[in-house]
Amino acid sequence: MTLMSDRANPNGVDVETLFATIDAVQGDPEIAKFQFRASNRWVSGTHSQSRIHGFHGAKQELTHAEPWAFDADHPAVLVGKDAAPTPVEFLLHALAACLTAGIANIAAARGVNLAEVTSTVEGDIDLLGILGLDEEVRNGYRQIRVSFVLRGDDPDKLRQVVEQSRSRSAVFDVLTNGVPVSIDVDAG
Amino acid sequence: MTLMSDRANPNGVDVETLFATIDAVQGDPEIAKFQFRASNRWVSGTHSQSRIHGFHGAKQELTHAEPWAFDADHPAVLVGKDAAPTPVEFLLHALAACLTAGIANIAAARGVNLAEVTSTVEGDIDLLGILGLDEEVRNGYRQIRVSFVLRGDDPDKLRQVVEQSRSRSAVFDVLTNGVPVSIDVDAG
Repeated sequence: MTLMSDRANPNGVDVETLFATIDAVQGDPEIAKFQFRASNRWVSGTHSQSRIHGFHGAKQELTHAEPWAFDADHPAVLVGKDAAPTPVEFLLHALAACLTAGIANIAAARGVNLAEVTSTVEGDIDLLGILGLDEEVRNGYRQIRVSFVLRGDDPDKLRQVVEQSRSRSAVFDVLTNGVPVSIDVDAG
Repeated sequence: MTLMSDRANPNGVDVETLFATIDAVQGDPEIAKFQFRASNRWVSGTHSQSRIHGFHGAKQELTHAEPWAFDADHPAVLVGKDAAPTPVEFLLHALAACLTAGIANIAAARGVNLAEVTSTVEGDIDLLGILGLDEEVRNGYRQIRVSFVLRGDDPDKLRQVVEQSRSRSAVFDVLTNGVPVSIDVDAG
């Protein structure tokens, strides 16, 4: 029974459900329309907290298992209280996590064995931009570098899995291609 | 003494230090070159964990007050275990937190009083893209909407503060304009 279970869930991925999900979406594309949400409240100074709980998908309102809360702040060197990572560091977490989830799913679907996946992500940013001191310098990261270490199957297969994950990553797409962002303000 | 302290720290922002930082950077632009980092480890399935601790800035290696860890996962409807928010939800947290930190700093620098800042962020994503079922559909968010509610000073002043925060936000820049991302793989 354990072996059966391992075969059905390589790398901890439920491949049967994964393929069933793809079949279901092919039969009804409305299932694939998702909306994710976060609500944020300013605490003090550069410190704020976001809550992540409800989302829409598969034609229904859904909630995560629990309502999660995440803080963000600036470190002392950037005139904050260092109560949490900076907002831009959460972008690096999102990128690593999205690519890694894809690697696990794709490896499982292809029968590629994964023993270990680790990564480091670095983002270079010149604060002359956000400080308004040089109009030639952008506000955000100039460059982001991801370094993966994968152990398990044949190196070529592992590299192909990473490439396929990159080509289907939601966060990689958003970070490299950008997305329209609208901002509405109720002030008073 | 309390009043003096309140004047020096409107909205919890240490304006004196903020302006001193800008002066220091003007005297030596190398201070403004920062590098942020995250390291990630795959747990199982779509679940991974990132650690955020060290960073480079102000011409030195620095660390946050503590090493933070953040998980990410997919919900059950997306074939995960729902151990944490999805990677794309962390993008929404980063955006809200970055804009809100800017609002607090800019309001303090302008002497604009803030009583309350809350926001909700919604991101629309059609999973036909990442599932590889429609080549016309992108992998990432199609659109992100931020809705702010600000209370405190004159509504026009509050709206101007939000607009200035948008124009100097690192995360808004990255999400709307994109950034080059390189991926290196050590497989074996």
